[in-house]
Amino acid sequence: MAWFGNLIRFSTTKSASSSSITTKPLILNTLFSHFTTDASLHNHSHSSPPPTQFAGLGPTKHNEKPRIVVLGSGWAGCRLMKGIDTKLYDVVCVSPRNHMVFTPLLASTCVGTLEFRSVAEPIARIQPAISKEPGSYFFLANCTGLDTHNHLVHCHTVTDGANTVDPWKFSISYDKLVIALGAEASTFGIQGVKEHAVFLREVHHAQEIRRKLLLNLMLSDVPGISEEEKRSLLHCVVVGGGPTGVEFSGELSDFIMRDVRQRYTHVKDYIHVTLIEANEILSSFDDRLRRYATKQLTKSGVRLVRGIVKDVKPQKLILNDGSEVPYGLLVWSTGVGPSLFVKSLDLPKSPGGRIGIDEWLRVPAVQDVFAIGDCSGFLESTGKTVLPALAQVAERQGKYLASLLNKIGRAGGGHANAAKDVELGDPFVYKHLGSMATIGSYKALVDLRQSKEAKGISLAGFISWFVWRSAYLTRVVSWRNRFYVAINWATTFVFGRDISRI
Amino acid sequence: MAWFGNLIRFSTTKSASSSSITTKPLILNTLFSHFTTDASLHNHSHSSPPPTQFAGLGPTKHNEKPRIVVLGSGWAGCRLMKGIDTKLYDVVCVSPRNHMVFTPLLASTCVGTLEFRSVAEPIARIQPAISKEPGSYFFLANCTGLDTHNHLVHCHTVTDGANTVDPWKFSISYDKLVIALGAEASTFGIQGVKEHAVFLREVHHAQEIRRKLLLNLMLSDVPGISEEEKRSLLHCVVVGGGPTGVEFSGELSDFIMRDVRQRYTHVKDYIHVTLIEANEILSSFDDRLRRYATKQLTKSGVRLVRGIVKDVKPQKLILNDGSEVPYGLLVWSTGVGPSLFVKSLDLPKSPGGRIGIDEWLRVPAVQDVFAIGDCSGFLESTGKTVLPALAQVAERQGKYLASLLNKIGRAGGGHANAAKDVELGDPFVYKHLGSMATIGSYKALVDLRQSKEAKGISLAGFISWFVWRSAYLTRVVSWRNRFYVAINWATTFVFGRDISRI
Repeated sequence: MAWFGNLIRFSTTKSASSSSITTKPLILNTLFSHFTTDASLHNHSHSSPPPTQFAGLGPTKHNEKPRIVVLGSGWAGCRLMKGIDTKLYDVVCVSPRNHMVFTPLLASTCVGTLEFRSVAEPIARIQPAISKEPGSYFFLANCTGLDTHNHLVHCHTVTDGANTVDPWKFSISYDKLVIALGAEASTFGIQGVKEHAVFLREVHHAQEIRRKLLLNLMLSDVPGISEEEKRSLLHCVVVGGGPTGVEFSGELSDFIMRDVRQRYTHVKDYIHVTLIEANEILSSFDDRLRRYATKQLTKSGVRLVRGIVKDVKPQKLILNDGSEVPYGLLVWSTGVGPSLFVKSLDLPKSPGGRIGIDEWLRVPAVQDVFAIGDCSGFLESTGKTVLPALAQVAERQGKYLASLLNKIGRAGGGHANAAKDVELGDPFVYKHLGSMATIGSYKALVDLRQSKEAKGISLAGFISWFVWRSAYLTRVVSWRNRFYVAINWATTFVFGRDISRI
Repeated sequence: MAWFGNLIRFSTTKSASSSSITTKPLILNTLFSHFTTDASLHNHSHSSPPPTQFAGLGPTKHNEKPRIVVLGSGWAGCRLMKGIDTKLYDVVCVSPRNHMVFTPLLASTCVGTLEFRSVAEPIARIQPAISKEPGSYFFLANCTGLDTHNHLVHCHTVTDGANTVDPWKFSISYDKLVIALGAEASTFGIQGVKEHAVFLREVHHAQEIRRKLLLNLMLSDVPGISEEEKRSLLHCVVVGGGPTGVEFSGELSDFIMRDVRQRYTHVKDYIHVTLIEANEILSSFDDRLRRYATKQLTKSGVRLVRGIVKDVKPQKLILNDGSEVPYGLLVWSTGVGPSLFVKSLDLPKSPGGRIGIDEWLRVPAVQDVFAIGDCSGFLESTGKTVLPALAQVAERQGKYLASLLNKIGRAGGGHANAAKDVELGDPFVYKHLGSMATIGSYKALVDLRQSKEAKGISLAGFISWFVWRSAYLTRVVSWRNRFYVAINWATTFVFGRDISRI
């Protein structure tokens, strides 16, 4: 790409020229002095291969603010960035998406109950410094490698959708590194899942589900399609009976009961939802709530099937007992596991293959590296169990780590290798606040017990649903989205769900 | 595709079985009796190639409602469908999108002033019969051919985005056919326009512009990019100074002045908008308004360039005088012309290559075929000039034709070849109500003269902007979207534009 060809020239020229500017654009000056070539970071000799292969942000100087690099923009990373004192630190976020997804409400966007935008929160709203402060940045990129020895991360820009731009490599020096890369949907090695099923973890997944569902509804109305094909095309199968799978099934049955019956009268009797789970649905909830959920889902037309998926083919899946289940839409939500990138990192690991951390969320054996959220787990040596992959865990860890890093920064330990003597204070302790899940038809479950064995309050029904909605509404990050979610709910109530396929 | 393999079996089986059902599911019975194989439509002999290649909706019987087939779901087709009396007719719409786009507000969605959903209106809301009545349908398909002799249209399902489903062919018999296929963006044969520029006619165009703009804003912040590249990447070029081009430029400059300055501080000085027009901008408006628009746009940072584009390359375009204009985003809005499909139709044509119509919007020489909107133009023999490709022309024609068809239906001329003796009444007469365009910074132009030479009211400034917003708000089709547009505007005013790239 012509215009991207000589990107590197900038770094060298600017570093050189900025040192001669002394009077004006102070901000620009500071900004540019960060940019440096990869070569200068490593001090390659002249005999090494062309040294200017990529550029980056060089190490901070002692008279500059230390730099926290955050990998990821999920619950953990965003809560951390929100809490960082930007008077103490510069914040650099590297993530393939410029927003946080409010995951508990994602299932509602697939059927038009909520708009996609209402559940996406731009990072620049969560931490405005990222777009305003001269030394803070957001980079739309993936991290491709860590060099903990040199306090460096290697990145690769994301340019999907714009096929005229080549990806670009760069490196960033960190003073503190926070790995908050989340997890990946587990497929348990089952063939065909990645090719034919849709996950439900990102906004684009919800968009894909929506487009597919509406396409199938319209295709099934086309002249010439047989009864059997129609039924297959309109068979929505959800694999995994955790909160996501159950909430999506509930939303889908609401959509069918209210909107499909009204707006797709020709095919309304052909659409069905099946939820496949190997064990029990909502296993983290108490028995009474589970029974209630089972009864309610069945009542609203969701077929619950106990089974293990063996193989996934283009229009059908095969269960362990050999039976075939044809589908038109397949949503996969069987839980998450460490990503390939996390697995590939040369860092200590927790049971289950996550990045191993100590009680202060530090990655031992390396300096200035922390890991939070679904990508991290307590090391066996801490004697603590690995925490579940929940938004509330990630959020609590982000909050804790922000205040820990602020404390370190205030004590003068912000720069690389400078925190050794700082007193860290209390370790991170997780207290479970309870679980919630909606099951459709204005009903939800609220389980306020601290663990499965503990005693405590558990609710099911309309009041729970009201608690569920209120709780999430107050947790939505910005006032803008809080307002939009409320408006979306009200509009859906009055006008029904939107069915335009855009 | 396995499940699509034996679609045709349905038709035969159902037609056969439905005749034996006499007591119950009357609706289903009626519904299925419409389905028939293509073979039976044509009465092929046994020696012809396999007769059951595709299925379709066969001719209506005399005791059934006549069927209007509408090709397209733009302003003309949707206004027509809204006005059709579904007690007289069954309505079948064939279109590659299941919604109408409220085009005057499309430019606002590119920068997040409005949500995409707020400008898309599902056809099932415009004409509910389409999803409820047993003989009315919406088919997500493209029309691939007309057989006016046999009163047949040939179609092809649209399955973009769902790569597991093969397109499917079918045919529909019509009693009345309304061609409302709209027009295509003109490229004037300039190389590279289709490959590198984005049009602004559909919601997916607006989505593409938005994704590209946000991507460029983020990419330009990545370490290592030179000043020059940054400027190229953030150079937004709009070609065409009609209302769409001007409105988009205005929206973009508002976005830059308010939102980019606040949320992309690092790169705010690099983003620029250039509007290239071969003649004068907003040529349909009066001199005073044009001068006002020019002044306002210049004031808000839009560079106006008089020039003719000769060639479009991946990251730059070349003007007639040989000068090169590098760009990061190129939006093309130089007007519209007949589509390839319209050009290919063996029907009389108007000057400019549109489908030729008489004063009653009929296509002469063939029976029961009408054409409205941008795809149609008065025949030279009518002595009338071809009307401009405007939403208000299309809408007025749709409304007129709906009442004409209702009149024909009431007079018993609804079925194929049955309208010969029906008195048609007054021909269609177009009265121009004026033009409006917003130019950003809470300013707009309102020109209420009936033609360029006539006298009348013309306004420019904040009051016009208020008129512009109010006028369009009241024209938005449904209460749901009217409510959403108002809410979107209020939110943008309070919180700024949304910048999440989803």
